[in-house]
Amino acid sequence: MRIDIISAVPQVLSGPLDHSIVGKARENELVEVHIHDLRDYSEDKHRKVDDYPYGGGAGMVLTPQPIFSCIEHLTDQRDYDEIIFPAPDGDVFTQEDANALSISQNLMFLCGHYKGVDQRVRDQLITREYSMGDYVLSGGELPAMTMTDAIVRLLPGVLGDAESALTDSFQDGLLEGPVYTRPATFRGLEVPKVLRSGDHQKVNQWRLEQSLERTRKVRPEMYKKFRNEQ
Amino acid sequence: MRIDIISAVPQVLSGPLDHSIVGKARENELVEVHIHDLRDYSEDKHRKVDDYPYGGGAGMVLTPQPIFSCIEHLTDQRDYDEIIFPAPDGDVFTQEDANALSISQNLMFLCGHYKGVDQRVRDQLITREYSMGDYVLSGGELPAMTMTDAIVRLLPGVLGDAESALTDSFQDGLLEGPVYTRPATFRGLEVPKVLRSGDHQKVNQWRLEQSLERTRKVRPEMYKKFRNEQ
Repeated sequence: MRIDIISAVPQVLSGPLDHSIVGKARENELVEVHIHDLRDYSEDKHRKVDDYPYGGGAGMVLTPQPIFSCIEHLTDQRDYDEIIFPAPDGDVFTQEDANALSISQNLMFLCGHYKGVDQRVRDQLITREYSMGDYVLSGGELPAMTMTDAIVRLLPGVLGDAESALTDSFQDGLLEGPVYTRPATFRGLEVPKVLRSGDHQKVNQWRLEQSLERTRKVRPEMYKKFRNEQ
Repeated sequence: MRIDIISAVPQVLSGPLDHSIVGKARENELVEVHIHDLRDYSEDKHRKVDDYPYGGGAGMVLTPQPIFSCIEHLTDQRDYDEIIFPAPDGDVFTQEDANALSISQNLMFLCGHYKGVDQRVRDQLITREYSMGDYVLSGGELPAMTMTDAIVRLLPGVLGDAESALTDSFQDGLLEGPVYTRPATFRGLEVPKVLRSGDHQKVNQWRLEQSLERTRKVRPEMYKKFRNEQ
């Protein structure tokens, strides 16, 4: 898989892309991540990429020219499965989207910044708009890195043990229950005996119960959906 | 405001914390962000911070000792408004949470990694658990940085123009409508005439209509809630 990320503040796009799961996947050539500085595509002599919003109001808006130039430069070279714009008014991104996107060959993310991007970009170039949740961020960089993380960890060979992703929360329509590790007693607090019993059937039964209970309590609508699908 | 972030992979916690809005807010001393490497608190001679899950299964679990030591080291020095654990089975984080947390004095984030953290940590030390959305990530680092961004941009003086945050999506219970900037015509695509009319009343009316229309289309449940509250 190849992922291209376009940003007006590309220096934000480090940390999570360079280390840990995504960093290792890049090292092991399981994914390519390319970052593009929008300013490199600006035809303005000061490399400007934003301007005041029409109609007045606070905040700056990313102008169409550098974005059109950058995206067309990329689409001239290869086909993209999706050109994604993270936006608070996009479709709500879920694990199902991560699963579906994880079989893509080429993905592109355009990161908004400041007040947003000129609507003509969204109308003409963007194929998917995703919201990460009902909150506002200073740009699309964190959402782009978050989606990249959610997608890349699903690629074959990225997680040490393939089973690890399949037993995650959401993959079976339920939240995961509690996990414990050594020591068996820490400051007087004990790990539930069933987990130390060695009885795999009982362990699985306990885990399912915990998972159902957690889901029912925290996310009743998810629990209801799960029950209806049984 | 002071924010402490605890992580087993602290190198992930760069990019978004060092640049752009949060980076500038730190430079201007509007917020302090301190990162703590969990391994520095491990009593294990190899600085180990994880172990196999009780009951078997894939993935490693963060052990209680380093986390208890690190969090107690911090809480010995100051009171924290909240000790937050990002988890897919936490309460769904929204703009209202960002607003409420933005008046805190001290916030702490504990980032899970691998398969999760020992449940005794969550039971004993954590005061809030937040989910960023229905998707699974390789750790709590991106959620911690995302919440930090959502909170810090609300602090007085952080955004250039205070109005910019108040007109964001969600702050009035609606999604924002489209924005446009120069040029008025780009590749034959025109900016709506009303935005260029100079008639502020008409501009505001158009923006409200667009905002209502966008919300009704993309997030009908949010639109319904807004209508009921009018």
